[in-house]
Amino acid sequence: MNFQFLNHLNTPSDLRALAPQELPDLAKELRQYIINVVATKEGHLGASLGVVELTIALHYVFNTPTDLLIWDVGHQAYAHKILTDRKTVFHTNRQLNGISGFPKREESLYDTFGTGHASTSISAALGMALASKIKGDLNKQHVAVIGDASIAGGMAFEGLNHAGVSNANILVILNDNAIGIDPSVGALKQYLTQVKTGIQTHDNIFEALNFNYSGPINGHDVFSLITELERLKTIKGPKFLHVITTKGKGLKQAEENQVVYHAPGKFDALTGDILPKVTTAQPPKYQDVFGHTLVELAHKNERIVGITPAMPTGSSLKYMMATFPERAFDVGIAEQHAVTLAAGMATQNMIPYCAIYSTFLQRGYDQIIHDVALQNLPVIFCLDRAGLVGEDGATHHGVFDLAYLRCIPNLIIAAPRNEIALRNLLYTAQLGTLSNPIAIRYPRGRGTLTEWQVPFTEISIGKGTQLKKGEKVAVLSIGTMAQTVTEAIKNHSVSHYDMQFVKPLDTALLHDIFNTYNVIITVENGTIVGGFGSAIAEFKAAHAYPNTLKICGVPDVFIEHGTTAELMEKIGLSAAQLEQTIHGFLQA
Amino acid sequence: MNFQFLNHLNTPSDLRALAPQELPDLAKELRQYIINVVATKEGHLGASLGVVELTIALHYVFNTPTDLLIWDVGHQAYAHKILTDRKTVFHTNRQLNGISGFPKREESLYDTFGTGHASTSISAALGMALASKIKGDLNKQHVAVIGDASIAGGMAFEGLNHAGVSNANILVILNDNAIGIDPSVGALKQYLTQVKTGIQTHDNIFEALNFNYSGPINGHDVFSLITELERLKTIKGPKFLHVITTKGKGLKQAEENQVVYHAPGKFDALTGDILPKVTTAQPPKYQDVFGHTLVELAHKNERIVGITPAMPTGSSLKYMMATFPERAFDVGIAEQHAVTLAAGMATQNMIPYCAIYSTFLQRGYDQIIHDVALQNLPVIFCLDRAGLVGEDGATHHGVFDLAYLRCIPNLIIAAPRNEIALRNLLYTAQLGTLSNPIAIRYPRGRGTLTEWQVPFTEISIGKGTQLKKGEKVAVLSIGTMAQTVTEAIKNHSVSHYDMQFVKPLDTALLHDIFNTYNVIITVENGTIVGGFGSAIAEFKAAHAYPNTLKICGVPDVFIEHGTTAELMEKIGLSAAQLEQTIHGFLQA
Repeated sequence: MNFQFLNHLNTPSDLRALAPQELPDLAKELRQYIINVVATKEGHLGASLGVVELTIALHYVFNTPTDLLIWDVGHQAYAHKILTDRKTVFHTNRQLNGISGFPKREESLYDTFGTGHASTSISAALGMALASKIKGDLNKQHVAVIGDASIAGGMAFEGLNHAGVSNANILVILNDNAIGIDPSVGALKQYLTQVKTGIQTHDNIFEALNFNYSGPINGHDVFSLITELERLKTIKGPKFLHVITTKGKGLKQAEENQVVYHAPGKFDALTGDILPKVTTAQPPKYQDVFGHTLVELAHKNERIVGITPAMPTGSSLKYMMATFPERAFDVGIAEQHAVTLAAGMATQNMIPYCAIYSTFLQRGYDQIIHDVALQNLPVIFCLDRAGLVGEDGATHHGVFDLAYLRCIPNLIIAAPRNEIALRNLLYTAQLGTLSNPIAIRYPRGRGTLTEWQVPFTEISIGKGTQLKKGEKVAVLSIGTMAQTVTEAIKNHSVSHYDMQFVKPLDTALLHDIFNTYNVIITVENGTIVGGFGSAIAEFKAAHAYPNTLKICGVPDVFIEHGTTAELMEKIGLSAAQLEQTIHGFLQA
Repeated sequence: MNFQFLNHLNTPSDLRALAPQELPDLAKELRQYIINVVATKEGHLGASLGVVELTIALHYVFNTPTDLLIWDVGHQAYAHKILTDRKTVFHTNRQLNGISGFPKREESLYDTFGTGHASTSISAALGMALASKIKGDLNKQHVAVIGDASIAGGMAFEGLNHAGVSNANILVILNDNAIGIDPSVGALKQYLTQVKTGIQTHDNIFEALNFNYSGPINGHDVFSLITELERLKTIKGPKFLHVITTKGKGLKQAEENQVVYHAPGKFDALTGDILPKVTTAQPPKYQDVFGHTLVELAHKNERIVGITPAMPTGSSLKYMMATFPERAFDVGIAEQHAVTLAAGMATQNMIPYCAIYSTFLQRGYDQIIHDVALQNLPVIFCLDRAGLVGEDGATHHGVFDLAYLRCIPNLIIAAPRNEIALRNLLYTAQLGTLSNPIAIRYPRGRGTLTEWQVPFTEISIGKGTQLKKGEKVAVLSIGTMAQTVTEAIKNHSVSHYDMQFVKPLDTALLHDIFNTYNVIITVENGTIVGGFGSAIAEFKAAHAYPNTLKICGVPDVFIEHGTTAELMEKIGLSAAQLEQTIHGFLQA
């Protein structure tokens, strides 16, 4: 394809020099450009294809970056990035040292607010708009573009509720494609469908919140968009524009199979076909171990229920939803609600498995403390994507969970070292012998065992296990870091313990370890501040052990994007680097 | 007053034996009973007075405790407690070993869900209702009573959004009195006012969310309430009843001065007059040090803005709101929004002071990480009511903050030892020399200095200071625990350091301390798991110091209610107990 317009376009100023009738062709080029790059470099596809015209119209009408534009859950921002001086580096998207897959303030003046988690854009835009109001800058425009899945998050409602009485110059654009990563759910989604189909014609929910509402309009008609945005630019106060788009627009397969093409991996840019992956037997994803095991358990134990906030595919709760639709719930982007819903179910003797990505559980933190742990309700939190998650980067790494969960009384915290341990923890949690809530933490991606569907074994809560016997130095690992440690010490006579539980600690085993070895090295894929190693440091202090303690983990900085292997190397947690660290103590 | 009905009434079964026409008299008695007890024993008054008729009607119509009733922010649950077998112990309300000021599962079968934080009731009730649905129990009723301030919290919206498509047997009752602790705010509140005044007549926001809506009805007419609840009991699926009440109903002063009479302290049960307090000069409340200092700073620095989620009175942001109404924002019960709003403002070069109670900041945890710290935006978090808060008890203690904040990169964490230090930290934060976010943590209640309005001094970030010089043992305290330590060591030759910052640690000072003293004792009024002492344990491990380290703080259990002094004694943190602990090390 000849990129007639795009070739000469670097910044929004270049865009604004085009005639309106040239914009549909630019849209075609922009769409193709995204497809070409994502086809080989991978990334989020569908969301950005859906907002090509909207992105063009916004930068055409508004005076970015003076006017401030925020993309909620920024995986819809690829067109924005390309139009704002990052066309030539777009091929480095999500790679180590390349551009981020999400808007990022450090990266560009046009990225006014970093957005990896959902539902933040209205609050951020309102903060900016109120700042402008205070400064007396009445002409500055503040625009939040938010999807129909994200606007259902409670935080977005809080933002709308404040914005509606703020008199601030804010425009909220609802990018309504009826899908997040999975199809949108909830009463608001039903309502929006009625609005789109003309069943609701007036007095809508956004008008009730005091917004000047317009729409719905066709989000793929760049002329309508420009006309409407030009009109809205002249209206003061809180405004709301409802735009209808199609996720994956312009690539047939992406439009027809929106969940798969959210982030399809490599595909053929011409045909859209997803490239075949390695077909030899691979170990399963931890997600699938969770998903399939839950179904297996649910067949035998009718008290089991499953809950996911908007990640049925990502967490593999979809298997439970397919098999037991009455007992599995996708509650939408609503982590707070998910946690307390689980608590409510637990009071009625159900056994709720609440599957939430580690990074998103931060959204339900108060609910874990106040609604679950304080009442000691045996909710089972399945913390998916714990540790470094790779290309999604700083907004998505699940590295804080051990630290933020460890201080909560009553909560059990476990991290399985492999698929079988995960399976057995999931099994143990529903035996009825647990009277406490438990968090089970496992990483993104594949395990190491192909033969994992073995008979269930109950796991002793709070017990660690020795994996290798050596001298002088003991390495204590938690979770799947056991694999890395195994590799790191294969040529050394070093003891290795899989502690399995961060809380309660296996104090009997720890006393034994501190009485046997001079040097204790802890290894975790979470922050070194307040995490597993910190728990061991507290134990050491409490019992006045003189041993040397070395804590290895994620350093106290935000970790950027790249492959997980690259990032682990960058922070000194590769097997080779751990070997060096351990080797240093062996020689000391 | 002769409690003709109440004297013979212990459980809801007794209530249901009364004739409907006897209920208004019972309401009078119940109201007087609450007034009599709260007048001398203190507690939350206005909210419970407002729901006397509603409470009677609910227990009269529904078959509690088989039918499940949840009171959102349970300080409205006094009438409920009295009617459910706790009349004779109601005088122990909020006292050590007495009943809790909030619903509490351990306390009564009628307390189906603990509710100290707002906006949780819909999610919890829906969890219960879905459990009943799964079990095939189609007749069980599940009722959430939620105020108009609480329903504006994002979590409540998440619950409504799910409930609306759930087909579950849930009744949400909006207790609309147009006030939380302070008057309600936001677009939804405006909308509800329109509904009440008949401006909105149809197609309302709750119907849009697929609820069977009825109301508004008079919440002080027990007959209307019973009739409507009886009708709703026969309707399946999600139902919504809008009830209008008056906070403080039945006590003239409480109706007229609703903010003061939310929790008025001791008052005359007959006249309603609040009893005069000690009038001798007292040290100020930390809240007022914050509130007045902020105004003082805002006069000089026009970039300063203030934000509170629904606590203008409690946090004393009300002074800033009165002086600079354009620069101070009560955003309602919306901690998530408050944090990200502050982040948005900070991107525009404003200096936001975001005042949130320690326990409620748990609600904005993800936003601190994702929106503030990751982008390193210099938001100033003023963490009010840190440490033990006394009579509000387990749901409200601010004991987790040091642990959950410490693992966040970029964030500065400070805790002033007295009012002057708080004042100077607030001053330092706005000098423009800080490029990081900062959390400043201070307790509920009064300080120790009457002369606190001294000229401002800049505080060096990350620097501690020695308060007393001694030998062998060094006590390191954080925040106002310095006062307790000063008292504890007054007769001992022990060194005392006020570390002032939990992050960054004063490592130079710490090296000096670890090289000088054999025994290091840390003292904090936060959890010992992952908190300040844990940071010192990590430091000790990182530098392989052999010193003995003793961590003193809040143990790893949920702490109940009582006076703060009683609770501190209970957990071994009184001055006398600390003296004993320290004495042990002096003799060793």
